[in-house]
Amino acid sequence: MPQQRIESPAFFIGKGTDDSDLISFGSGQPDLPPPPSVYKVLEHFRSFKYGLVQGTESLRAALAKEYPYAEPEDFVITNGASEAIDLTLRAIAKDALGSKVLLPRPYYYSYPHNVVLTGMVPVYTDLQKGKIDFEAFARDVAGCRAVIINSPSNPTGTVQEIEMLKKIEELCEEKGIYIVSDEVYKDFIYVRGNYLLHGEKVVTVNSFSKTYAMCGLRVGYIYTKNREIIDTAVEMKSHTSMNTSLVGQAMALAALGERDSYVAEHAKIWKERRDFMYRGMQALRLDVWEPEGAFFIMPKFKNAHRAMHDLHYNHRIITYSGEWFGAPERLRFSYALNVEEIEEGLRRVKKFLETEYKTY
Amino acid sequence: MPQQRIESPAFFIGKGTDDSDLISFGSGQPDLPPPPSVYKVLEHFRSFKYGLVQGTESLRAALAKEYPYAEPEDFVITNGASEAIDLTLRAIAKDALGSKVLLPRPYYYSYPHNVVLTGMVPVYTDLQKGKIDFEAFARDVAGCRAVIINSPSNPTGTVQEIEMLKKIEELCEEKGIYIVSDEVYKDFIYVRGNYLLHGEKVVTVNSFSKTYAMCGLRVGYIYTKNREIIDTAVEMKSHTSMNTSLVGQAMALAALGERDSYVAEHAKIWKERRDFMYRGMQALRLDVWEPEGAFFIMPKFKNAHRAMHDLHYNHRIITYSGEWFGAPERLRFSYALNVEEIEEGLRRVKKFLETEYKTY
Repeated sequence: MPQQRIESPAFFIGKGTDDSDLISFGSGQPDLPPPPSVYKVLEHFRSFKYGLVQGTESLRAALAKEYPYAEPEDFVITNGASEAIDLTLRAIAKDALGSKVLLPRPYYYSYPHNVVLTGMVPVYTDLQKGKIDFEAFARDVAGCRAVIINSPSNPTGTVQEIEMLKKIEELCEEKGIYIVSDEVYKDFIYVRGNYLLHGEKVVTVNSFSKTYAMCGLRVGYIYTKNREIIDTAVEMKSHTSMNTSLVGQAMALAALGERDSYVAEHAKIWKERRDFMYRGMQALRLDVWEPEGAFFIMPKFKNAHRAMHDLHYNHRIITYSGEWFGAPERLRFSYALNVEEIEEGLRRVKKFLETEYKTY
Repeated sequence: MPQQRIESPAFFIGKGTDDSDLISFGSGQPDLPPPPSVYKVLEHFRSFKYGLVQGTESLRAALAKEYPYAEPEDFVITNGASEAIDLTLRAIAKDALGSKVLLPRPYYYSYPHNVVLTGMVPVYTDLQKGKIDFEAFARDVAGCRAVIINSPSNPTGTVQEIEMLKKIEELCEEKGIYIVSDEVYKDFIYVRGNYLLHGEKVVTVNSFSKTYAMCGLRVGYIYTKNREIIDTAVEMKSHTSMNTSLVGQAMALAALGERDSYVAEHAKIWKERRDFMYRGMQALRLDVWEPEGAFFIMPKFKNAHRAMHDLHYNHRIITYSGEWFGAPERLRFSYALNVEEIEEGLRRVKKFLETEYKTY
């Protein structure tokens, strides 16, 4: 088989894994379907005209009930969290091109691109075993206009301590630094409840993609008490994409209606997978950080990028190179798979470790 | 009634006109519903995972049949034409920040914002009665990296002559200037068939919003033979919004299946409205350009911005200020309304002309 060089996650996104023998620890998306009511609304859906650029009033009102002290006007409904991040950074970059944005490293692979695309400059602060080191953070955030916090984190699977998040809130408030808090995995935390970052310059990014398994339907949102960010984002969105798909917004509203039962039921499944994956990696004596949230784990490998290729082409396992996330000595495994597939995947990793990996 | 200052089209977008006595010549969107099959696909729609960032293969393959010599890989499916323009300009701006982009004036109100948002600089060339003056164009395009051509035009309703479009193709090819050809109104031409601009640096932008009345569903696309633009746009989109909503793409594919009958049937309706509106405006002795395409007409008014407010608050008619389109001495009327509503609207304009307008 010709081995094509895998350059970026775009190599895999949306390609599916029809090959019955391929096991994908690649894409970060739930495998189980959304709540049934999400499809039920389609029966009667008949809208076709432009909607409010900010998002439908019904969806924003429903979201406002989920956040303490929130009002419908504090939200902008977006084409997934990706557009929420892009719009937020564009709004932050307005009249401030060339500003620095701090990214804890390892980072979600899009962040550096997002920052550059809005005319700002990414700078980095290194996590210690997946955790923020406050001293380093305080040093590195100086002079930045914004920082992106992503807890639980894609790709590390770690969660920042509440005390740490509060210290970051305080420091950033004092220095007038925007916090873009990407909380798309807030409903996937195995060690505690979510802590919602807040403050005058905090912008929360979230989405229906992970919690409700709606990745392909592209509905996310910005939530912030910062009126200027909301107004600027809506104004920009009126030129760059207009309203988010009305049918997607109707599906998202239906999903919210089933929130309690759906999330509780799925929490058990994700916890079981997490435990299985973590124990399996430990049994293989791989160097990993304990996964506390999301559905990722990042084992260390010698020559990790080569390992990714060998795992793919010789063992039919998709993993993502840590290089793409600023962790070149690791691979990212997504465990959004049923336990049988995880088991088979781990069996193949074991085989790899016992064969070609020995020659690395 | 308190009279709120109307600052931009965002004042109206998506707000609906539930007030039975309000007549909206505002928003540029079809009032008649999409082809029925667009809703039929919803019955069986069950996708939820990420799709290809470039767009589903089925939709791109169907589009490729519509354009001579096109291949599925020549398309990127986007969140409406708005995102198509944003992505195209971002791709053109890559490594070329500060470049100039030429906009024929009057222009679609988002264009200057789109150019500025991507770090480039809008410059203008004035249309003569809605038509490009080649001498002025050749002078003004010198030193530009790109030009946006929009024929049929929103807001002018004019169509550029085929000979003129060919001269522009030739000049831009010679000078290495990108042409972004926004052809979203290509199926609304009353004077001839569409002329598809083409060339190595031509990027066609189109959408399902106007032809198939799917504005709120947000499906548009980029079509170009320029591989670099496609690759850059897809890479950027993988960070800024990922795939366009899969349910929207499924609906768009269904719409394409009914193209021939739907477009032919609607062409008659639009032509009738066009004739009615044009004759009505002439009867009122308003200074207008003959509407040759799209569904807009731009009469001249003394103190046009004030006229917009008076028409809105005193006569319950929504129009858009020409100011927003670079034509401050005019108002834009969208005639995406049935003939009875157009008739009533014209009656109100007549009343306005006979009363307060006399005091301007």
